[in-house]
Amino acid sequence: MTVDKNWVTAADVARHAGVSRSAVSRTFTEGASVSDKTRQRVLAAASELGYQVNIIARTMITGSSNFIGIVTAGFDNPFRSKLLTPLVHHLALQGFMPLLMNADDPQQLEPSLRQLLSYHVAGVILTSGAPPLSLAEEYLAKKIPVTLINRHAELPGADRVISDNAQGAQLAATHLQAQGAKHIAFIGESPVNFSSQQRYQAFCAAIAPRPVKAFFCPVGGYQAGWDAAAELLANQPQIDAFFCATDMLAMGVIDFLQHYKLAAGKVKVIGFDDIPQAAWAAYQLTTLAQDTELLARYAVDLLIKRIQNFDRPAVHKAIPVKLVVRHSA
Amino acid sequence: MTVDKNWVTAADVARHAGVSRSAVSRTFTEGASVSDKTRQRVLAAASELGYQVNIIARTMITGSSNFIGIVTAGFDNPFRSKLLTPLVHHLALQGFMPLLMNADDPQQLEPSLRQLLSYHVAGVILTSGAPPLSLAEEYLAKKIPVTLINRHAELPGADRVISDNAQGAQLAATHLQAQGAKHIAFIGESPVNFSSQQRYQAFCAAIAPRPVKAFFCPVGGYQAGWDAAAELLANQPQIDAFFCATDMLAMGVIDFLQHYKLAAGKVKVIGFDDIPQAAWAAYQLTTLAQDTELLARYAVDLLIKRIQNFDRPAVHKAIPVKLVVRHSA
Repeated sequence: MTVDKNWVTAADVARHAGVSRSAVSRTFTEGASVSDKTRQRVLAAASELGYQVNIIARTMITGSSNFIGIVTAGFDNPFRSKLLTPLVHHLALQGFMPLLMNADDPQQLEPSLRQLLSYHVAGVILTSGAPPLSLAEEYLAKKIPVTLINRHAELPGADRVISDNAQGAQLAATHLQAQGAKHIAFIGESPVNFSSQQRYQAFCAAIAPRPVKAFFCPVGGYQAGWDAAAELLANQPQIDAFFCATDMLAMGVIDFLQHYKLAAGKVKVIGFDDIPQAAWAAYQLTTLAQDTELLARYAVDLLIKRIQNFDRPAVHKAIPVKLVVRHSA
Repeated sequence: MTVDKNWVTAADVARHAGVSRSAVSRTFTEGASVSDKTRQRVLAAASELGYQVNIIARTMITGSSNFIGIVTAGFDNPFRSKLLTPLVHHLALQGFMPLLMNADDPQQLEPSLRQLLSYHVAGVILTSGAPPLSLAEEYLAKKIPVTLINRHAELPGADRVISDNAQGAQLAATHLQAQGAKHIAFIGESPVNFSSQQRYQAFCAAIAPRPVKAFFCPVGGYQAGWDAAAELLANQPQIDAFFCATDMLAMGVIDFLQHYKLAAGKVKVIGFDDIPQAAWAAYQLTTLAQDTELLARYAVDLLIKRIQNFDRPAVHKAIPVKLVVRHSA
């Protein structure tokens, strides 16, 4: 790689402003002492030359970068895409730059720990469906702050923000029972998926002593919902309602019901997430809306607090969900 | 921010291996001269201590980083999410780290140029719907390579990869005419959207001399497709086919037709993109599939070639699209 870029250096600015290199550096360092007059001359020269503070150089000096690793599983899951927008937004507002790692990509998952370390990331955000917690443990061992979103709690020293799965499951149970549903089935993403497990357990508790037929898919998604509905209804044709751990599963269920004209309109379906597609006319899905804006804001806020004080007590924050009633239930 | 991270430094590795600091540096620099024996000792020590090459330090030395800016408009558009996965993958394969800027976010768009400059990005990829080309011109003025994906061509010195819009529009025209469609309408994302314009013009040419009723939405998306279908059919109830510039528009059209039971099944609909939702049973959308894998691979490949030689002639590459026939047409 060549080094002939037209970068304007701090030395260029110093020469142009007729001040020392150190005066330029102090002008662009928060809290550093520099006279008003010098600062004005430096800023004018910097603006004329198009000088950009070299963040890389600053990182070398301070020992800490403003990079935040975001480890997520795939970018094309609608819920995770919806979460990414406010995450990147709130990081940018605080002057942090996200480094995005796709945990679904084997060529990125394995070296992701090593890579993020080599960028001296200031912190890491692990989202739902992302890699095993052992990865997070390795970051924590190196005193790199970790915030988990919609992940399991058992990680000392890591902050955690989750949607209130128990509240959501309870709202779903109450709503389905109020609508007269008697034989309710649950479809989860996978038996080891944290959110699916939490939603399932709270849902069972909410409609006890009535039993819930449950089906956990090997992998999540639209087709999995379709297949789960097929299997559940083949064995229990009396099922009159589905509570699905994600909207994607719920849409697969709705399309299966439509396709086979199985009790169309009679079988109720509730999802979880409120992805944009849930509002589409073909689905009109009743669902539990996760507040991605608030999830992201708390996650960034907690991470920054831990960057400032690594040893503060871990905070676990549950964000309320909201029942959005549409035509599916 | 504190500097008390447990970073292992090159000096630690040198001490542990009993070699010089320079020997450690040379071991981790491609092409640098170091004896096999020394290399083995350094690698063993690095592995024992968990040493990570400090990319930030390396950037300071070489003057160039391995950051690539990806400027995209929103993460929750399904097509752009689908493109992001192979883009990040191919960059990672080549040792590059993407810095993601959301051009839809006013708080990121304005400072995005300045920000990416301060990271000394090695190159920038601008995707469809991203900010004005004037931004790209400013990068080029600083000799920072720029690759455009599905964007306008008139930018000297920038490489460009697009899906073959003309070929796609022609395939759509041929397919709709073969199915007996006589009154075909076109729906575009916006009159200034490059892809919509290209698809519209090629489509008109392909079904000339028959005229095409066209509707360009102020903004794209599902609801825009619904509204466009409503307006077009109110004025021209004889319309028997829609060619939509995106799948999202097409899904809005299909749901509008379904909802009002307007000639359900008789009016044909073709989209463009092949997002995952196009295959869902509620839509079964016939569409032109963009090869996101190939778009990403060429974009990364061209960018790397320009990083190695900024002054090489610009390359414009058109990637073929594929007609995917489902039930909607």
